[in-house]
Amino acid sequence: MSRDVLLPLALAAALAACNPPRSEPVRPVKIAEGEVEPAEWGKAYPLHHESWLETRLPTPAGLSKYKRGGDGGKTFDKLSEYPYLALLFKGWGFGVEYNEPRGHWHMLKDVIAVDPSRIKAGGVCLSCKSPYAPRLEKELGADYYSQPFHEVRGKIPARHQELGAACIDCHTHDDLGLKISREFTLGKALRSIGTDPAQLSRQEMRIAVCAQCHVSYAIPKDRDMHSTGIFFPWQGGRWGRIAIEDIIPHVRATPEWTQAITGFKLGFLRHPEFELFTNGSTHFAAGAACADCHMPYQRVGSSKISDHRIMSPLKNGFKGCVQCHSEDQAWLKERVLATQDRSASLLLRAGYATAGAAKLFEKANAARAGGRGIDASLYEQAKRLYEEAFYRVTFIGAENSLGFHNPAETLRVLGDAAAFALKAEALLRQALARAGVPVPAKVDLESGRYLEGRGEKKVGFEPRLEFKDPFGTQSQF
Amino acid sequence: MSRDVLLPLALAAALAACNPPRSEPVRPVKIAEGEVEPAEWGKAYPLHHESWLETRLPTPAGLSKYKRGGDGGKTFDKLSEYPYLALLFKGWGFGVEYNEPRGHWHMLKDVIAVDPSRIKAGGVCLSCKSPYAPRLEKELGADYYSQPFHEVRGKIPARHQELGAACIDCHTHDDLGLKISREFTLGKALRSIGTDPAQLSRQEMRIAVCAQCHVSYAIPKDRDMHSTGIFFPWQGGRWGRIAIEDIIPHVRATPEWTQAITGFKLGFLRHPEFELFTNGSTHFAAGAACADCHMPYQRVGSSKISDHRIMSPLKNGFKGCVQCHSEDQAWLKERVLATQDRSASLLLRAGYATAGAAKLFEKANAARAGGRGIDASLYEQAKRLYEEAFYRVTFIGAENSLGFHNPAETLRVLGDAAAFALKAEALLRQALARAGVPVPAKVDLESGRYLEGRGEKKVGFEPRLEFKDPFGTQSQF
Repeated sequence: MSRDVLLPLALAAALAACNPPRSEPVRPVKIAEGEVEPAEWGKAYPLHHESWLETRLPTPAGLSKYKRGGDGGKTFDKLSEYPYLALLFKGWGFGVEYNEPRGHWHMLKDVIAVDPSRIKAGGVCLSCKSPYAPRLEKELGADYYSQPFHEVRGKIPARHQELGAACIDCHTHDDLGLKISREFTLGKALRSIGTDPAQLSRQEMRIAVCAQCHVSYAIPKDRDMHSTGIFFPWQGGRWGRIAIEDIIPHVRATPEWTQAITGFKLGFLRHPEFELFTNGSTHFAAGAACADCHMPYQRVGSSKISDHRIMSPLKNGFKGCVQCHSEDQAWLKERVLATQDRSASLLLRAGYATAGAAKLFEKANAARAGGRGIDASLYEQAKRLYEEAFYRVTFIGAENSLGFHNPAETLRVLGDAAAFALKAEALLRQALARAGVPVPAKVDLESGRYLEGRGEKKVGFEPRLEFKDPFGTQSQF
Repeated sequence: MSRDVLLPLALAAALAACNPPRSEPVRPVKIAEGEVEPAEWGKAYPLHHESWLETRLPTPAGLSKYKRGGDGGKTFDKLSEYPYLALLFKGWGFGVEYNEPRGHWHMLKDVIAVDPSRIKAGGVCLSCKSPYAPRLEKELGADYYSQPFHEVRGKIPARHQELGAACIDCHTHDDLGLKISREFTLGKALRSIGTDPAQLSRQEMRIAVCAQCHVSYAIPKDRDMHSTGIFFPWQGGRWGRIAIEDIIPHVRATPEWTQAITGFKLGFLRHPEFELFTNGSTHFAAGAACADCHMPYQRVGSSKISDHRIMSPLKNGFKGCVQCHSEDQAWLKERVLATQDRSASLLLRAGYATAGAAKLFEKANAARAGGRGIDASLYEQAKRLYEEAFYRVTFIGAENSLGFHNPAETLRVLGDAAAFALKAEALLRQALARAGVPVPAKVDLESGRYLEGRGEKKVGFEPRLEFKDPFGTQSQF
């Protein structure tokens, strides 16, 4: 064809690209206030509902190196991935069965299926797992926290007793706006750091609705170890800077379990995605919200909706990333791995160092029980250092990006964790040597003792799941 | 004015913006082959020459938190900034006088002015400091390396005996192209990692010319500790991945000095900007070269030249950054500090841990000298770990971006450094306790002993220069 013919064709094509088919107006289906059933919301918002439903689907295997939960529909044993965790968490549920998370659709089902030791805290465990949590908390008061998990869950309408995060958890029923449904956790927590939830911008709300659950929390207990409440341990921080240093004092003051190997009463840390991401990460500083990367806008037919099949961008072709980054997928993946490999390497250093120190406390306790004198000052200083290490290792270990949400902060916290743990080891070696207790240069962690035959299902170690140091440095310790 | 008047005006303005004044052609002044005198090059390229000359000017104070060299025209004592360095480097020149670098114009002058202990290696020290180095090396052979620094320097024409990096070091005389003048160092080093210098792209050359000097190097010695050569210890790495793990074996095999406090014969590491930046940093992966950030193009009159007043973007209004980044200066500065503060925190952790271990070796050596038995296996294992820590601390400590050139890699290396040092401390505490040597939980580093009265100038500690941990964590150790 001559240029005279091609030009008008090209112009027509360009004009067509500028005039896509018009969006169809949303049909005026009313959603009743307090409606929990996602299918009812789906009548008004069928595309959103459909994409939310897809969180039940298996994620493709082999795309994420470190976060494999849901790949091929399976769960993955986190204690086999990081064997030192079995030793550190011995004494409570997380040391029995602790799996990588799968999609939202599975969240309550997976808790029902997990070893019962994991739900000993009681009804309080529903706080994130069921859309009925806010009304149960209001209706039952103290009983909501302390009564057995399945007893409280039994008060949920039968058809929703396995329903996880639903539309009502994040949305207003009348206009699909964003809302905080967890006043009793996130609402209080935001006010405790000087942030008025009602004043959050829309972009901040696209973070806050996720922060209803993707946070660390603490569960206070009474003297009989019954749960009396739940709170987010952020006091002393502020929006945009809730650091591990702000969190530790509150967690330490809220012991939830006794670590078998050391005998220490300890607090615990859970999946602090919100805290880590917002604490000075480049993506946060650039104005990105959780939803920008994990719920990117996409065209479905003639509509544009945010993707409710929330997952790692590694698993969905970097859909969120490419809205801002022009590089190809191989480049983007290499960038993610450059961070995650380094985080994994230091996490292993810090984790094994903490586990090694725990074994030395075990030796020191045994020596004391056997009548040998262990220097009390060295022991107490080592204990303080050890706890600083333990909380840091747990903080990053529970966070679900293996460093990507905030590379520099992750590596800072892990470097400190390794330092605290090894300083504890130094003081313990000194104390044990003084007491005449022999300790080999490389402490045998006896990992098999903690990894095998766990809980009702007798879960065992799966060596093929274990993460090895991508830099090979761990073998020098 | 009506829109009818405004529109033509706006169009005219827009058209004028598209037609800036035309560049004046460069005058055909010929530069003789081998011409060293910058003023001669300046006749052909007056704007480049002028901007190079500006490296003699003081840099503005208060803009860079961690790299203050040249601010107000002054030098800054690195041993006062990081007091543990005085302890670690006791035994040779770097422990006597070690200043933050200033602009290129000062580079040889500052070496002439520094304590003579710093130039004991001999003529080899000119390899980066004088444009005459390549021809001196060719003419003098072995003598170039081993003869006294000032004797070799005396062979440079009198008017250039204080001249640092000049045009000829990076440029071809006939067309101002980029060239590698340091065949005897960088040329060999590139070939040793499988890179043909002649095959480098222009963008790679915009890195390579800087890598002639902004690298780590090692100086082999004969049995009388006379220098016999110089090489870049990269073998085992490759372009884009020369890691500290590749470097350490070569440095360890090239002892240059004896550390006073431990008695160990050690290698040394220098300013590895090239190695750190190119080892998987995001900026390198995005295709940026050293010159993009440190020598941004700028308009001078009717010409566009690359800025030869090379300095930190923190000090020149982020000129290089804003060519790609649209954020404002406050935002950019906050990003730099987010990385540098974290790097500084972990650097202090690793540095003081390494210094603490060194003090325990001193105790162990004294105990042995006093006839007490120190477990040889624990001592040797601790020594191996200690050296791993020492080289990492020196690697990052000598690098001139305090982490910004590669945040994740910096923090990984520092986390490992702290871990190695504290594991060494652990084994030493055990060995010392077995030998009945008391060690307090917090080792007194006796920093004053190393910081005060250094060298011919009796340099002392300047407390106001010291960097404290921006996160306050160091005080817990």
